[in-house]
Amino acid sequence: MSEPEENKNQVRIIAAMARRLQEVLIFLCLAIFSKVTGAKPHPRGSGLDGATYCLSWRMAVETDNLRAWRTVPIQCLRHVETYMIGGQYDRDIDLIMEQIFSYINGIVISDDGMDAWILDVDDTCISNLFYYKGKRFGCDPWDPASFKAWASKGGCPAIPGVLGLFSKLVENGFKVFLVTGRDEETLGQATLDNLHNQGFIGYERLIMRTASHKGKSAVIYKSEIRKQLVEQGYRIWGNLGDQWTDLQGDCSGNRTFKLPNPMYFVP
Amino acid sequence: MSEPEENKNQVRIIAAMARRLQEVLIFLCLAIFSKVTGAKPHPRGSGLDGATYCLSWRMAVETDNLRAWRTVPIQCLRHVETYMIGGQYDRDIDLIMEQIFSYINGIVISDDGMDAWILDVDDTCISNLFYYKGKRFGCDPWDPASFKAWASKGGCPAIPGVLGLFSKLVENGFKVFLVTGRDEETLGQATLDNLHNQGFIGYERLIMRTASHKGKSAVIYKSEIRKQLVEQGYRIWGNLGDQWTDLQGDCSGNRTFKLPNPMYFVP
Repeated sequence: MSEPEENKNQVRIIAAMARRLQEVLIFLCLAIFSKVTGAKPHPRGSGLDGATYCLSWRMAVETDNLRAWRTVPIQCLRHVETYMIGGQYDRDIDLIMEQIFSYINGIVISDDGMDAWILDVDDTCISNLFYYKGKRFGCDPWDPASFKAWASKGGCPAIPGVLGLFSKLVENGFKVFLVTGRDEETLGQATLDNLHNQGFIGYERLIMRTASHKGKSAVIYKSEIRKQLVEQGYRIWGNLGDQWTDLQGDCSGNRTFKLPNPMYFVP
Repeated sequence: MSEPEENKNQVRIIAAMARRLQEVLIFLCLAIFSKVTGAKPHPRGSGLDGATYCLSWRMAVETDNLRAWRTVPIQCLRHVETYMIGGQYDRDIDLIMEQIFSYINGIVISDDGMDAWILDVDDTCISNLFYYKGKRFGCDPWDPASFKAWASKGGCPAIPGVLGLFSKLVENGFKVFLVTGRDEETLGQATLDNLHNQGFIGYERLIMRTASHKGKSAVIYKSEIRKQLVEQGYRIWGNLGDQWTDLQGDCSGNRTFKLPNPMYFVP
């Protein structure tokens, strides 16, 4: 090849490289943008609108402005998925645990054994994330039979931060009450086994729904339980749950802490 | 110039253009990324870590997991700025208003004139965003003298969504009580004027702190006011504020709604 032709070839090659580079960088930009915002097409408008709608939706859920919702809006499937498994859910929990630890460190425990904490079970102590992956992160409607089958296996993993908190509470001398809406008759043994196999050892009592609580809302049922504990002389220093209905009503505790859960609402 | 030299020149020019294009696209990527995530260097780690920390911090604030904080963490300045003026704050409010409208549409009003709503004033009815722009969106500590000077001017703009809600409440026959922690003696007239010039016309009463409320926390002060209203026979259907301390305590209302505010905490 003559020198001029070789140079022309170089020009073509470099121009092609420049085009390719441009394509790659534009793709990279879009990928980062979509990853960060969780942008998805959405009936309200463009992809970005969809992402910002889902941010607003999740904030409304977590602040209890949005109640009694039945399913995650389908346009927020990817947003909730990314939130739950992309790291932000874990980081949100870590920051809440930091707050609780700092609160606990300021409490002077008495020696009468009546300093208590209340923890919810599902998606507080142990996680149903694997189950909800199969339910499109809450986009599918509540399915009691399949949830019962899942819970019966006793295979929910601990939420690491909450297991750490649990251990600290027990070590520090708090009486820890695990209060759950699960039915004692059908899920009692599986829940006991699951908590044990995940390291929740040393709590005072696991309190589950019995026939007498049937049909009551979570707020009514959990308030009744807490009222009984207070009448027995317990001081409820803290109350942790993933649902506002864990934390509302009577004797809710000196401080309540809300864990994130954009996948379902318990009435 | 000979042909080979000209071609060599073209190669150099195209190579330089490709480099420049690469720089521009990388900058663009970083700009979009930083705009979307509010990513800033952060002691906890990289820029991305900083952005995810600020998301967790803001969520903890809005869910009342983080209390009695004095200033926005300095590493979250850009994050809070972007949130407040980049559109997400407005969209979050719009979605809350939708929820409130749907709640209101389900209420059957009686004709005794005792159906009431409570609205907070600062950053609920009228906005202090312009003031907080000058206080680094809450990164600067609370400055009562400069806030008093700002509020005295009576120039806070209405929050459009809340003005719309206010008008609907008045039209529908609710008695609207505006309850604020502002001091009546020093800010009474300016606040009345400001509400009027922004279109808040037709409310039942503007209730402000007087000498008898001095030194009381917001929860105690606002609970006392609400209790008096309930004793007078009012049914508090709803209560809207940007602070959890607007919504906690006695007679908080049949439903409470929390507006976002990541710029300051009122104890």
